[in-house]
Amino acid sequence: MKIALAQINPTIADFSGNLKKIRDFSAKAQKQGASLVVFPEQALSGYPALDLWEDPAFIRENSRAIKKLAAESGELGIIVGFSSFNSAPFGKPIHNSAALLHRGKIKASRHKTLLPTYDVFDEARYFKPARSNPPFKFKGKTIGLTICEDAWFSEKNGNKKLYQTDPIGLQARQGADILINISASPFIRGKNLQRRKIMSAHARKNQLPFFYCNMTGGNDEIVFDGRSCVFDHKGRLIDQAKAFSEDILLVDLENMPPPASPSDMSEIEEIEGALITGIGDYLSKCKISKVFVGLSGGIDSAVVAALAVKALGKDRVTGVSMPSRYSSQGSIVDAKTLAQNLQIRFLSVPISSLHDSYKETLKNFIGGNPEDLWEQNIQARIRGNILMALANKEGGMVLTTGNKSELSVGYCTLYGDMSGGLAPLADVPKETVYQLAQWINREKEIIPLNSIQKAPSAELKPGQKDEDDLPPYPVLDQILKLHIEERLGLDEIAKKGFSKNLVKETLRRIELSEHKRRQAPPSIKISPKAFGVGRRMPIARGTYLDEEL
Amino acid sequence: MKIALAQINPTIADFSGNLKKIRDFSAKAQKQGASLVVFPEQALSGYPALDLWEDPAFIRENSRAIKKLAAESGELGIIVGFSSFNSAPFGKPIHNSAALLHRGKIKASRHKTLLPTYDVFDEARYFKPARSNPPFKFKGKTIGLTICEDAWFSEKNGNKKLYQTDPIGLQARQGADILINISASPFIRGKNLQRRKIMSAHARKNQLPFFYCNMTGGNDEIVFDGRSCVFDHKGRLIDQAKAFSEDILLVDLENMPPPASPSDMSEIEEIEGALITGIGDYLSKCKISKVFVGLSGGIDSAVVAALAVKALGKDRVTGVSMPSRYSSQGSIVDAKTLAQNLQIRFLSVPISSLHDSYKETLKNFIGGNPEDLWEQNIQARIRGNILMALANKEGGMVLTTGNKSELSVGYCTLYGDMSGGLAPLADVPKETVYQLAQWINREKEIIPLNSIQKAPSAELKPGQKDEDDLPPYPVLDQILKLHIEERLGLDEIAKKGFSKNLVKETLRRIELSEHKRRQAPPSIKISPKAFGVGRRMPIARGTYLDEEL
Repeated sequence: MKIALAQINPTIADFSGNLKKIRDFSAKAQKQGASLVVFPEQALSGYPALDLWEDPAFIRENSRAIKKLAAESGELGIIVGFSSFNSAPFGKPIHNSAALLHRGKIKASRHKTLLPTYDVFDEARYFKPARSNPPFKFKGKTIGLTICEDAWFSEKNGNKKLYQTDPIGLQARQGADILINISASPFIRGKNLQRRKIMSAHARKNQLPFFYCNMTGGNDEIVFDGRSCVFDHKGRLIDQAKAFSEDILLVDLENMPPPASPSDMSEIEEIEGALITGIGDYLSKCKISKVFVGLSGGIDSAVVAALAVKALGKDRVTGVSMPSRYSSQGSIVDAKTLAQNLQIRFLSVPISSLHDSYKETLKNFIGGNPEDLWEQNIQARIRGNILMALANKEGGMVLTTGNKSELSVGYCTLYGDMSGGLAPLADVPKETVYQLAQWINREKEIIPLNSIQKAPSAELKPGQKDEDDLPPYPVLDQILKLHIEERLGLDEIAKKGFSKNLVKETLRRIELSEHKRRQAPPSIKISPKAFGVGRRMPIARGTYLDEEL
Repeated sequence: MKIALAQINPTIADFSGNLKKIRDFSAKAQKQGASLVVFPEQALSGYPALDLWEDPAFIRENSRAIKKLAAESGELGIIVGFSSFNSAPFGKPIHNSAALLHRGKIKASRHKTLLPTYDVFDEARYFKPARSNPPFKFKGKTIGLTICEDAWFSEKNGNKKLYQTDPIGLQARQGADILINISASPFIRGKNLQRRKIMSAHARKNQLPFFYCNMTGGNDEIVFDGRSCVFDHKGRLIDQAKAFSEDILLVDLENMPPPASPSDMSEIEEIEGALITGIGDYLSKCKISKVFVGLSGGIDSAVVAALAVKALGKDRVTGVSMPSRYSSQGSIVDAKTLAQNLQIRFLSVPISSLHDSYKETLKNFIGGNPEDLWEQNIQARIRGNILMALANKEGGMVLTTGNKSELSVGYCTLYGDMSGGLAPLADVPKETVYQLAQWINREKEIIPLNSIQKAPSAELKPGQKDEDDLPPYPVLDQILKLHIEERLGLDEIAKKGFSKNLVKETLRRIELSEHKRRQAPPSIKISPKAFGVGRRMPIARGTYLDEEL
């Protein structure tokens, strides 16, 4: 029996578009000789549908779609993720389910047992867990079918296991002879190897072939990286689908090819892939065709523009230089050179007269001191306004250019450089932005070397340098990672060799800039802990960085 | 035995401040003769602490605080909400707990059984539920102690019960002779009567006195309304604490006063109370003393300014008029009159020259058509910038003035009128804004009648009226309520007597403006479904308003 893993990129709530995709991939799989085609978790509606899962109309449409797909099904078996109704008189109204469609009918329906409730996941909000999930027969095989988190039962949070049960091992004991898991597993740098290790262990431990079908594509902050894979009963990787694109992986169960060693992407390559996918899919799923990027001559905006060109093509990206009296000549030249290198449309809109106009308008209320916070912010806000005006006029979207390091400590201006529909670098620390720039330049100089080599500056007051206001980025980025990703506190971080005062000041800045992040555009998650939906912090709060009680 | 319910207003993460409050209220309760004082759910750390509950340092501080409080305890028994460690090797690391402190020790510790995972609640993200919660002895009484949601076990979601178990009934069967519930139950208009009905039923059904201690105060989007209450064993209300303020309710168990009939607040009165509390606590817990409000002469900004004065006092509110060439003389006068009526500082900052300056700066890129979206938006953005500049300079916060009706359909400008730290009316539909204005004017004309009576207009282009762009507000507000609060779909709403096209267009506008709401400042929740933390929607998505598959 040939099994096809159809790694598709559905759009949330686009039932007719997703149905079409499922039909097309099913036809392709059948043409290639598959007896069974497998689609990802919630392939019918897209993932994560968030509170749409609470919308009765959404669930009705999902139900109509699965019935229609079942009615159309023929000799090819189709396994597809959807939401099924909970028939019990209590609990959440739906399950996170998978159906086997065959010869006009829903032949089997199985529900997710383990519901993730951490980071970007809130599945206990929406779904009732399965009480049991026994294997089912298809064409003489006994299939153990699980959904995403069911395969992650052994994961730990600190020294505690998240879950008590092993839904996959149970299916093996119940007589499964093939294991299939359908997933919507978000990209995190380095996660693919961990994922393969876990899935391989299921195959090896249970001595059964294991088919893992992951989703691909970007959905707001989350990118699914595909890389569906198949393991033989010894846990050896047989094949892996493409990263960050739709793909079909076909494997003959009775005649498996020898173990494969796919050439894995480097960390920076996969981060770039996630960002390009995130930008491209956000634009296409929002039905917006072009973007505007403010080009300061610095590295962040250069990397965003380069990624946007890779995601959308050069004709859909406009770079806008908005020099002020504090912009260095070098920065102006670097911005223009970048635009030339990328072959994108380039506009130059000087902001000095607007800056003067604000000072004139406000002179009776606010004294004129160029060091003042308001004067720095107003320049960023003028630029944000200009970009938004251009985007409004042409029906485009502004991409913001700020990185995670700045956003962490609030070194950014609300309604200024934070204005835009998507923040591609908001989960990318400054040190990684440098790596991205070098990676983008690996064959030729696209990002001007000067943008990479000069000291970072917001250029909002005379002689300003980031390092006057912030710790050096290599230090800052380490502290941020220890605190945000690894959840270490003040003392634990200081013990790793940082000044306690510096750590304290940094953590306090994180606390005090929560209000900015609450109003930030979506980012693209590449780390274990991105700002946005997966990190929820109160704004009005006290602090426990001072240890008195 | 006299029991005191100490309805306090803790600040999230301010352990030393909250400890002090608990000490002070304990001393007051003891002075009044109480043997037992009861504090709300999570009184030690504030609620909702959100992902701070995942921060090991936060949990350690909470643990230090409860130990310190226990060590200090004497003859007065103290029941207080905190987070305790889960001792099992699996599951979430903490419980949502309550401790009985007495004579230097934690005498009993009990955990929440039912964890809400809907609307603003994500407790399954943080807490391990209790496996059992038996009553415990204190001074000869057997106390059944539950936490918030435990008392709401009979609630339904559509036709399904949320939960299977009744933690309170179980305690009664296990021999409890007093029932106590500690809560952090968010304000929703009209909820207090529902809450009293539910708590009264526990007392009546189990034939036991019931003590209900709720939190008070605002925390970002959520306001707790207090109104703790006590019921006798027949379910009769004995007493109710104040709304929206700290209070102690002392009841002698052996000598209960006769049933009481508190004069309940009208709906508009309690909405006003929630908004004033929300504004005041957000400012004080953010440690910001003053606010800036853009006064357009319209009703929304007038109501926000009036509420701000009630929350903060007139000396901490600045009204800013920012007339443009499209501002009517009436609007300018109305804004000034309002400021005079409220006795607040009033600034007038005309924006025409800035508007011209933007047009001049952008003339080579964007043609000049005053009907253009960008030209309308830029005026709102200039105003947002001016307010932010003033707030930056003086260390204040801008309050936005948009209402829920506008925000629902995206009739508002990102980085323009949406600029600010708090959006007091973002959960208040336009029709309720009118009611608020009338309520505020009930004794004398504070909000100019003209602001209430004239047709609403954004005044961003010549002759503009809201009704040219939107359905009349009475119609719009009904459609929005049916869809957002009651979750009805297109056909169901149309069947209630609205044009299907109008409903479809309205629902589609809600879908298409999700990106604006994602970047909106926090609102203050007064409805069953507010935008913000309790309503999570994808931005990049398809639609199922067209019914083809």
